[in-house]
Amino acid sequence: MTGETIGSDSADDNDDTLAAAGEFAVIDRLVAGRTQADAVTLGPGDDAAVVTAADGRTVVSTDMLVQDRHFRLDWSTPHDIGRKAIAQNAADIEAMGGRPTAFVVAFGAPSDTSVSVAASVTDGLWDEARQLGASIAGGDLVSAPLWVISVTVLGDLGGREPVRRSGARAGDTVAVAGELGRSAAGYALLHRGIEGQAGFSELRQRHLTPQPPYGQGACAADAGATAMTDVSDGLLADLGHIATASGVGIDVDRRLLDGDRQAVAEAAAAVGADPWEWVLGGGEDHALAATFPGALPPGWRAVGRVLDGPPTVLVDGGAWAGNAGWQSFD
Amino acid sequence: MTGETIGSDSADDNDDTLAAAGEFAVIDRLVAGRTQADAVTLGPGDDAAVVTAADGRTVVSTDMLVQDRHFRLDWSTPHDIGRKAIAQNAADIEAMGGRPTAFVVAFGAPSDTSVSVAASVTDGLWDEARQLGASIAGGDLVSAPLWVISVTVLGDLGGREPVRRSGARAGDTVAVAGELGRSAAGYALLHRGIEGQAGFSELRQRHLTPQPPYGQGACAADAGATAMTDVSDGLLADLGHIATASGVGIDVDRRLLDGDRQAVAEAAAAVGADPWEWVLGGGEDHALAATFPGALPPGWRAVGRVLDGPPTVLVDGGAWAGNAGWQSFD
Repeated sequence: MTGETIGSDSADDNDDTLAAAGEFAVIDRLVAGRTQADAVTLGPGDDAAVVTAADGRTVVSTDMLVQDRHFRLDWSTPHDIGRKAIAQNAADIEAMGGRPTAFVVAFGAPSDTSVSVAASVTDGLWDEARQLGASIAGGDLVSAPLWVISVTVLGDLGGREPVRRSGARAGDTVAVAGELGRSAAGYALLHRGIEGQAGFSELRQRHLTPQPPYGQGACAADAGATAMTDVSDGLLADLGHIATASGVGIDVDRRLLDGDRQAVAEAAAAVGADPWEWVLGGGEDHALAATFPGALPPGWRAVGRVLDGPPTVLVDGGAWAGNAGWQSFD
Repeated sequence: MTGETIGSDSADDNDDTLAAAGEFAVIDRLVAGRTQADAVTLGPGDDAAVVTAADGRTVVSTDMLVQDRHFRLDWSTPHDIGRKAIAQNAADIEAMGGRPTAFVVAFGAPSDTSVSVAASVTDGLWDEARQLGASIAGGDLVSAPLWVISVTVLGDLGGREPVRRSGARAGDTVAVAGELGRSAAGYALLHRGIEGQAGFSELRQRHLTPQPPYGQGACAADAGATAMTDVSDGLLADLGHIATASGVGIDVDRRLLDGDRQAVAEAAAAVGADPWEWVLGGGEDHALAATFPGALPPGWRAVGRVLDGPPTVLVDGGAWAGNAGWQSFD
């Protein structure tokens, strides 16, 4: 178990550990001075928070991030980890056609973690939530032998029907909003320790703090998207979920993804990898992928078409032999 | 890190590990055949779930349980752990005067955990949620070096104002619904390995699966409770939260708690402990404690009175020298 004090180079001269400060004092410090989003009518400090659900429904999703599995403390800053935890959860609400309103966060860390490090994680959570007009409505802080961050996001469908994975129909256009392959490229650069050119730094940062196309989920729903998901496991794997749920085939046209390939081509050359593996198989960019019967809304680009069944995902009309995505247990 | 396969004595002859079965197959098995509560209009299987929020608000709380910190695999069955995770979260919604409607659960476990053990945890989650008329609307399953269960509960206030900790006023009656001291007694018996008489078995089980007084939170709100919390850290510690938030003193009358003392007296004698330490300082029973300006509703019993400030909690009119409750980091 990792029991070392993290962030001991902090500039805070009065930087207690979580154990020395005590749970309630730490929570007071993490909560102090934060302004809740309008949707949060009762924030931290009581047994539970109260969040407005304007149309009488709440969309809800949860994700757990575990140290050395979903992030590394020698790659990510505490602030990065907070941002990523919010971003990947927010993408799940976007993928239903909703907008995130509030988050609750459970954080487990060793008792000798410094309070300033926990505060940096919290700053990261807040900074990313604020990009969405949302806030951190509550949480839990516990002792654990390693870092574990579990985020639950609440969202508002704004009167829309949720866009499920099961509505794709033959003839629909398959489209993407957001980036593909960047997170996988950044991971490979970090894993190999390749510094390289300036653009590589941006790719590395994309792995540490993905940038989902906030707002595009609701736009897609308004534009009549028939099915949608976020790209967390890899484009082909996640389109596979749509194909299975909808009982359709999907054909991805690589010519339409050449911009993504180009964006990671130099990194792929430096690593000795095939950039298509990253564009088609790399997860964690948290782009959105959806199917549309009509015109695409601004911010979306076509990447393929929906075919009559059986449920399968093709690339340029044929099977794809490469890596198709991520499994949680391997 | 605990990497052993848990539950290898399972009767299931075809019992893969999580790694062998794969994330999606495991989730399919955990989700199959479950009937969602009416409030859950879209359950697991998509990017997010949809839960009805009938009065336009959602009450939300989250708690993380970490192996060897909040439960032990040699004391609890997987089913117990699932039940406890739901019960302690549900109590937070009760403590606001609400009723739980749905839960989302993130579960981290070693990849060599057997699928049947994960299924037992899930059965425990569902069995406890069903007692509340609620269900498990979604979740996440990840690889972790030890068990971590993070539960978020959504609840419905039914048009009521949330009962906060800050509304207690001098002259109010302090009252409790549910049990006190049993969880602490059970912990001590388990910790010392004392088998003893038949009643000890029930106390041990109370520690493993607390039984909050479900439904009493909403009853208290309807009866005009001015402040409420659940007893998770210990009666005096949790009344301290009310005292601080409300700016009042609270005086607990031990004569009114003699039934609780009697219920754990034999266990205390067997362990060599003071039963009052458990009744006044023991947490995790998830009883409810509230203040009422008028008559108590059925199921509630007076345990003390609210005084003019300063914020403090007295016992029989004086300071209490014993253990007053739990800190997450020690």
